[in-house]
Amino acid sequence: MKVQADDFFFSGLHLMGNTSNPVGSRVTTVFATQLPGLNTLGISMILTVLEGTLQVGFVTSNPDNRLITKVLKKGDVFVFPVGLVHFQHNVGNGYAVAIAALSSQNPGAITIANAVFGANPPIPGDILAKAFQVDKSVVDHLQSKF
Amino acid sequence: MKVQADDFFFSGLHLMGNTSNPVGSRVTTVFATQLPGLNTLGISMILTVLEGTLQVGFVTSNPDNRLITKVLKKGDVFVFPVGLVHFQHNVGNGYAVAIAALSSQNPGAITIANAVFGANPPIPGDILAKAFQVDKSVVDHLQSKF
Amino acid sequence: MKVQADDFFFSGLHLMGNTSNPVGSRVTTVFATQLPGLNTLGISMILTVLEGTLQVGFVTSNPDNRLITKVLKKGDVFVFPVGLVHFQHNVGNGYAVAIAALSSQNPGAITIANAVFGANPPIPGDILAKAFQVDKSVVDHLQSKF
Amino acid sequence: MKVQADDFFFSGLHLMGNTSNPVGSRVTTVFATQLPGLNTLGISMILTVLEGTLQVGFVTSNPDNRLITKVLKKGDVFVFPVGLVHFQHNVGNGYAVAIAALSSQNPGAITIANAVFGANPPIPGDILAKAFQVDKSVVDHLQSKF
Amino acid sequence: MKVQADDFFFSGLHLMGNTSNPVGSRVTTVFATQLPGLNTLGISMILTVLEGTLQVGFVTSNPDNRLITKVLKKGDVFVFPVGLVHFQHNVGNGYAVAIAALSSQNPGAITIANAVFGANPPIPGDILAKAFQVDKSVVDHLQSKF
Amino acid sequence: MKVQADDFFFSGLHLMGNTSNPVGSRVTTVFATQLPGLNTLGISMILTVLEGTLQVGFVTSNPDNRLITKVLKKGDVFVFPVGLVHFQHNVGNGYAVAIAALSSQNPGAITIANAVFGANPPIPGDILAKAFQVDKSVVDHLQSKF
Repeated sequence: MKVQADDFFFSGLHLMGNTSNPVGSRVTTVFATQLPGLNTLGISMILTVLEGTLQVGFVTSNPDNRLITKVLKKGDVFVFPVGLVHFQHNVGNGYAVAIAALSSQNPGAITIANAVFGANPPIPGDILAKAFQVDKSVVDHLQSKF
Repeated sequence: MKVQADDFFFSGLHLMGNTSNPVGSRVTTVFATQLPGLNTLGISMILTVLEGTLQVGFVTSNPDNRLITKVLKKGDVFVFPVGLVHFQHNVGNGYAVAIAALSSQNPGAITIANAVFGANPPIPGDILAKAFQVDKSVVDHLQSKF
Repeated sequence: MKVQADDFFFSGLHLMGNTSNPVGSRVTTVFATQLPGLNTLGISMILTVLEGTLQVGFVTSNPDNRLITKVLKKGDVFVFPVGLVHFQHNVGNGYAVAIAALSSQNPGAITIANAVFGANPPIPGDILAKAFQVDKSVVDHLQSKF
Repeated sequence: MKVQADDFFFSGLHLMGNTSNPVGSRVTTVFATQLPGLNTLGISMILTVLEGTLQVGFVTSNPDNRLITKVLKKGDVFVFPVGLVHFQHNVGNGYAVAIAALSSQNPGAITIANAVFGANPPIPGDILAKAFQVDKSVVDHLQSKF
Repeated sequence: MKVQADDFFFSGLHLMGNTSNPVGSRVTTVFATQLPGLNTLGISMILTVLEGTLQVGFVTSNPDNRLITKVLKKGDVFVFPVGLVHFQHNVGNGYAVAIAALSSQNPGAITIANAVFGANPPIPGDILAKAFQVDKSVVDHLQSKF
Repeated sequence: MKVQADDFFFSGLHLMGNTSNPVGSRVTTVFATQLPGLNTLGISMILTVLEGTLQVGFVTSNPDNRLITKVLKKGDVFVFPVGLVHFQHNVGNGYAVAIAALSSQNPGAITIANAVFGANPPIPGDILAKAFQVDKSVVDHLQSKF
């Protein structure tokens, strides 16, 4: 596969994308898939647009990478070590926009609500009931949402 | 610090420990803290004793390690890649005993219920309500357990 | 050394800084020195402000990191592999602002003009004359600038 | 190649295997070949069954892994750093069973007697005689065994 | 691809090669291309023959390697960390011969004069003029040489 | 600790040293201890002088290094992967001189005869007798030499 100049260039990180979805947010990824020049370089970028919304989850690394760090930007910079459960919430009006750098060319993200209550095949309800120390009916209610 | 023969030896992995606790399980760790000879070797072991009980969580790596894998043993061997949300449940009577090897000399583990509903400082209830798509009262109920 | 929440937070990447200097540019670094939480994470960020100006150089990695990649942002994203000689030039009016992520917590940068003609102790003029295939007087002229 | 659930599961580590062989021991390996889910994870397991027998050798790593550690288990845990010449001997009656974790998905093992006196092509006898500081006849005797 | 004994052997590092070229030097590389057994081993060797000549440049690593060090030999040993701009000059008569070890199986080298003034496509003259703080005519002169 | 220019320079690899010892060889090491600039660079050099003599052993890596390769030089270049049992023998008259590069800043070497028959505490004779499939008297004889 011949390397070309275009492999090192990506355009579109100024586009906010559509946030009219259930979680009210949009993530534009610039991973090795979108920007082939990132291949083997162990770094990538994302644009996150939050419209008064949130995410509770954590970032995972690919096996060929050491770890993933999320560095947000809007004057303020935060570090989220890989595997740290965290959330992002826009406390203001309008849009919050963040640029994040991740130390993997192909990182992953886990949304906990989906992973726990929307797993396929599902995690048995009685196990979740014990893990969360609530009645199974509460778990059934949570699982019905995903 | 002088290295000694004892640094490479640990005794006690045959002791099941007391499982009379809320989660009904006991984990004995053999990390670099207990077995100094593991220092820099990127590997460790645990003994897990489950008494009809469970855990919903994932394993994290230390920054100086590539990743962590959990290999259980009782004739059957399972692989749990680092960051994979999983649970362990004893479906039989009596005790289930597992030996796991982890590819970090000092791995971590996250129990999701604690990390999400028992965080300190707490994750705001309205954010969790939106993340799990339930009423805030359900979240309040869950948070009261941790 | 106790880890604190502030170790994971840095504020100031919205400040452009003063570009009234010979090279007409300003770089604000967010390395492990400024943001201790980056320690061991192998990633960092910089804000580059260019006022119709330029740099011809390359980025170096620290020994404990694999490599360094420069990912600029303004809608467009470019990849600069570590060691690649490159330049940045603002072809428009006003300021050009770029956010770059570097895959090292403590990266370095080499400006070639300084490294070659401003080295201390200096690289002998006759060697530079032969390397650049010009009269030594041209080299003397170049060296007098640094 | 599609990843399947079975790639993360192996059954058979409860089977001791046949130890009626010259060295009186049996090793069951659970490497990436037997358990494909170990691929890229840098860890593996073996079951060693010793019937009053022994091994004098050392473990080697694959190039894509940092090092290999052998962690035995029977209540007692020992660390064998990669490259360390060691032996295992069952001082009791009956079988000794050990579970070992190795920090490579595809480790190797060298039995010194084979490697030195059974090499193919053979190491010249006069060289071995000098290395072991014995008569060549002693070396001939040793080489005749492998 | 079957590994063969010849993959671990290379002959020819005693041949100085022809130094009758513009830069008056010759480099014989023993990289993974010439010596396949170096594959994955992260090390290589070169023979450098200098006939009263020089090089101003730096060494680059391949993405799958940590860094490259140049260790010269003639009784004296020098370390050149990867990315360090350096030169080699034979101050005596006759030939200077150096053996270098590089911590990459497939390292690269950048000659600064070529990279800066002989780039293709060329770096614009006015940018180089500003970078080197000289008149564009000086840059034109330099660019005409490459 | 302040870095100084001398940290990157070592002189003495032209000195053959005294080979009038039992094994008839001399190794001059240029490791991080002798050449501090090698620190973190993962590479080192040795000069081996063989006077009709030999070594049967293997090279080990330090935990913070990937692996060690031995690249000999005298026109011919050989690769010895880490952990490979090998020997070096001078088949000619006079001295054989080799320069080797090792991909560790602080490598180790194991001489098998010493490690097996000269271990302290000793490996029990009956275990060695079984491992080498000879009478214990042969082992006693071998152990008496170290």
